Amino acid sequence: MFQESPRAPNREGVMRAAAKLAEILPPTPLLPVVIGGVHCHVKADNLQPVGAFKIRGAWHRLSDLSDEERRRGVIAVSSGNHAQGVAWAARKLGIDATIVMPRNAPAIKLDATRALGAKVVLYNRPGEDRDEIALRLCQESDAVLVHAYADPWVIEGQGSAGIEITTQLGRQPSAIVACCGGGGLSAGLSLACPESKIFPVEPEGWDDIARSLAAGVILPVGPNPPATDCDALQTPVTAPVNFNVLKGRVEPGLAVTDTEVRHAQRFAFGALKLVLEPGGAAALAACLSGKVKLDEDSAIMLTGGNTDAADFARVLTSA
Amino acid sequence: MFQESPRAPNREGVMRAAAKLAEILPPTPLLPVVIGGVHCHVKADNLQPVGAFKIRGAWHRLSDLSDEERRRGVIAVSSGNHAQGVAWAARKLGIDATIVMPRNAPAIKLDATRALGAKVVLYNRPGEDRDEIALRLCQESDAVLVHAYADPWVIEGQGSAGIEITTQLGRQPSAIVACCGGGGLSAGLSLACPESKIFPVEPEGWDDIARSLAAGVILPVGPNPPATDCDALQTPVTAPVNFNVLKGRVEPGLAVTDTEVRHAQRFAFGALKLVLEPGGAAALAACLSGKVKLDEDSAIMLTGGNTDAADFARVLTSA
Repeated sequence: MFQESPRAPNREGVMRAAAKLAEILPPTPLLPVVIGGVHCHVKADNLQPVGAFKIRGAWHRLSDLSDEERRRGVIAVSSGNHAQGVAWAARKLGIDATIVMPRNAPAIKLDATRALGAKVVLYNRPGEDRDEIALRLCQESDAVLVHAYADPWVIEGQGSAGIEITTQLGRQPSAIVACCGGGGLSAGLSLACPESKIFPVEPEGWDDIARSLAAGVILPVGPNPPATDCDALQTPVTAPVNFNVLKGRVEPGLAVTDTEVRHAQRFAFGALKLVLEPGGAAALAACLSGKVKLDEDSAIMLTGGNTDAADFARVLTSA
Repeated sequence: MFQESPRAPNREGVMRAAAKLAEILPPTPLLPVVIGGVHCHVKADNLQPVGAFKIRGAWHRLSDLSDEERRRGVIAVSSGNHAQGVAWAARKLGIDATIVMPRNAPAIKLDATRALGAKVVLYNRPGEDRDEIALRLCQESDAVLVHAYADPWVIEGQGSAGIEITTQLGRQPSAIVACCGGGGLSAGLSLACPESKIFPVEPEGWDDIARSLAAGVILPVGPNPPATDCDALQTPVTAPVNFNVLKGRVEPGLAVTDTEVRHAQRFAFGALKLVLEPGGAAALAACLSGKVKLDEDSAIMLTGGNTDAADFARVLTSA
């Protein structure tokens, strides 16, 4: 299912990724927030140029490609945020990018990916196997596959958020609460901040990583996972390159409901003046629901804000 | 109409305000934005703790009160953002605060002001004279009036945003585009950044400062000003303490329509992932409508994000 990883990700790679990102992008703000009377912090990665943290891993990966690899172009599979990250990095580096995206991805994500100059290939979710489509395209075109999470560069790149938080806070945070799809961000943060507790948060019914951590082996999501508003976190199974970092390292995984996520989106609107997509509000949802014990050195990742206006309007008026 | 100002605001006061604010609040982020192909900056003061820049002037004013003045308490008149700024500063300093607010202010502003511990006195807009109510309350209680703009401390405090922009940019911006109600922010920015062009932006029909600048004397808004979504910018007339700074110094005033403001709110939602209230989007609206010539050293003030969920949902779906 996954291409074998050429190497394991490591902390040196995270530091290098953070340095490379600092050359081209200002750090996203670490903002104060009060949750249940506790003063802590949110890392507003929804304010990245593509509206999501995925620009981090994409930039680290693509900027490390050789000239020969760059000429071959890149292919990615994504529901929309990794898509925009790869498209953004590819445009900046003059690389051809093809992105395999689900036909029912939010329009804002499809439009933005195309606007960044990438070629978009659509598939039906569920039904078609997106990884199979991507592998076929890679074989046909000889392009380089940039996996959304099963990639040491992508993991290291996402981890750069942890380095920024440490700089902004003046120390490694006591805890980082992060949304979790394939486990790229949680793995990267684990490497970035060895002294921090890492809490991965998945949508209810899509908590394969929580169950894998509990079992000690990789388990996929069940055969008929429920619908979820978190389009960015519908990942069927994590990869060995991620799980090898996560197991025995991160805290037990947490799951949040769509209702908890919508509440978090409304909280971010009212109290933080920030726009969050459902998946980008998952970590905040876990905190607002009292599932994580926070203190003043805790940081909550706000990972994305790419949501359609009509969908967000519905969330705002559904309280 | 206005109490005589005890002194003129000055740049030293702005610098002192900036230093005092830096002690208690991190600078709000200066974020990249692309408008009409030009890369420039937005100053996201909607991310302040009270969701608006007004916390600046309120803190500078209240923290400079003598012990005797603090014991007397403060009174302010505000549609909601100055209200929250004064209530926030008063709570932090242990000062009693009474705020005169219009009955039709956004619920989010009324609720937040009360939640900060201030006593709220409602009046009908139009019909009752809010300044008259405030003066009567001051006479009855001997409290200190903290005017929303006709006050040298308030002007200096708002100007601290210009000092932060200069630090973040590494130089004084070529231009700062700012929303304008009574002229406190524009006057403060004029003092903060003597090398910058300052563009005040008012709602159409409420552009008394633009007309005053053109005439060289203070003119009020017309007798029957039109309805505007910019509840924060419905100021009938500027004060001498503001106009004396603005005249001959700032650029000709600009006016924006509600349609342009709503477009700017949707742009901030989609491209910046930021929530802006109508008044907080006025400067951005002027820029998106091509009314200001921007360059890479230009900064646009995003001044507030206190808007009700139902109102914002309507803006999002009205395109």
